[in-house]
Amino acid sequence: MIPHDVHLQIGSLLFDGVDQIDLTGPFEVLSRIPNSTYRIYGKTSGAVRDVRGLRLMPDGALADAPPLDVLHVPGGFGQEALMEDTEVLGWIRQQAAGACRIFSVCTGALLCGAAGLLKGRRATTHWASFHLLPFFGATPVNERVVVDGSYVFAAGVTAGIDGALRLAAELRGDDAARSIQLYMAYAPEPPFDSGTPETAPPAVVAQARQAMSAMTARREDTARRLAARLGVAVPG
Amino acid sequence: MIPHDVHLQIGSLLFDGVDQIDLTGPFEVLSRIPNSTYRIYGKTSGAVRDVRGLRLMPDGALADAPPLDVLHVPGGFGQEALMEDTEVLGWIRQQAAGACRIFSVCTGALLCGAAGLLKGRRATTHWASFHLLPFFGATPVNERVVVDGSYVFAAGVTAGIDGALRLAAELRGDDAARSIQLYMAYAPEPPFDSGTPETAPPAVVAQARQAMSAMTARREDTARRLAARLGVAVPG
Repeated sequence: MIPHDVHLQIGSLLFDGVDQIDLTGPFEVLSRIPNSTYRIYGKTSGAVRDVRGLRLMPDGALADAPPLDVLHVPGGFGQEALMEDTEVLGWIRQQAAGACRIFSVCTGALLCGAAGLLKGRRATTHWASFHLLPFFGATPVNERVVVDGSYVFAAGVTAGIDGALRLAAELRGDDAARSIQLYMAYAPEPPFDSGTPETAPPAVVAQARQAMSAMTARREDTARRLAARLGVAVPG
Repeated sequence: MIPHDVHLQIGSLLFDGVDQIDLTGPFEVLSRIPNSTYRIYGKTSGAVRDVRGLRLMPDGALADAPPLDVLHVPGGFGQEALMEDTEVLGWIRQQAAGACRIFSVCTGALLCGAAGLLKGRRATTHWASFHLLPFFGATPVNERVVVDGSYVFAAGVTAGIDGALRLAAELRGDDAARSIQLYMAYAPEPPFDSGTPETAPPAVVAQARQAMSAMTARREDTARRLAARLGVAVPG
């Protein structure tokens, strides 16, 4: 339980090839948490492009970040290029060591894994990378938001909104989270029941897996290499 | 019905004080619509700040936009400063005249109203501005997504995600929308039932209305002034 009168430093990692809504979904919540300062940090202080081209600017570079109370790590295809980036992984590891909450969205969980933070944890990530969690020593849990101690893992992409609201409630109480949810008019009405591989039409799932197969194969190669380095015994 | 083999030009308006998720929620969908080009246009080609400080960069200035097939108008407190901006309103009016779909999110509907586009339409907007729609000649409909002819209106903030998926289905068929929804893992699980004034706790609603009261009063003054100019008979 974090006292509500303690000011919180909240920070998100931003990188080229982030999936922008992994950042901007939580932004809507994190930027409204009472008694907090929220900033976004990139490898440099320059603009980056998200995986579909949206140009976003960080508030500063990694080195500009104060010790964070809440660390947010988004995902997106660009995560793969950072899986052996000692600067970024070192920053995540160092910030996570001092933070009271670490919040990953989507394949941000793989970055946390590469930083050695997932060993022995229950975790989740995007459905297309879910099977890779054991390579980092984690137990995959097929839920939209998984809380394990100081860690909050949101599954794919838009799950970051749900995860951020859970986090807001943990940090500042249920009514603070309800108030943000009301402002955001977050009473979703998806037009289809197609948000998970279990509910989407099989042909749509097959096509999506196919479209992501090269990326998934690259991620698996990397995960296998990192597992050896992390000393994780890989199943199968 | 728009033939799926016709390439679509899709464009979003970006402005200072936009509520970023009014843009970035739909971005996740609009940037993945098959056979389309999607770009973001600002008053200038420089970076803007969203209402909570996120810095976003447009792909070009208003004058750089081609004739759009789909025009997306987000909202946010910064909308108020554009309600009598002849350049922006003229751009919206001109693009809307040639577009096959006009898609407003949140108080983007008020910008469409100021451009004279809401007369006689069924429309919706953020709950805090819902009562202002008649000043622009519209009939308010308390639904999350309202479709009226070529217009798609999403209610507050995160409703833009639902609206964009509806739009994707209209433009490219249900399976195209389902495929995007699966990628986005959009199977929301809000932690509370607090996304509308009807469902949030009364104390939370009262506090939210209070926090927005000055903004709402300014918007009402503007709406009243514009109603006179638009020749709309204001009820009451």
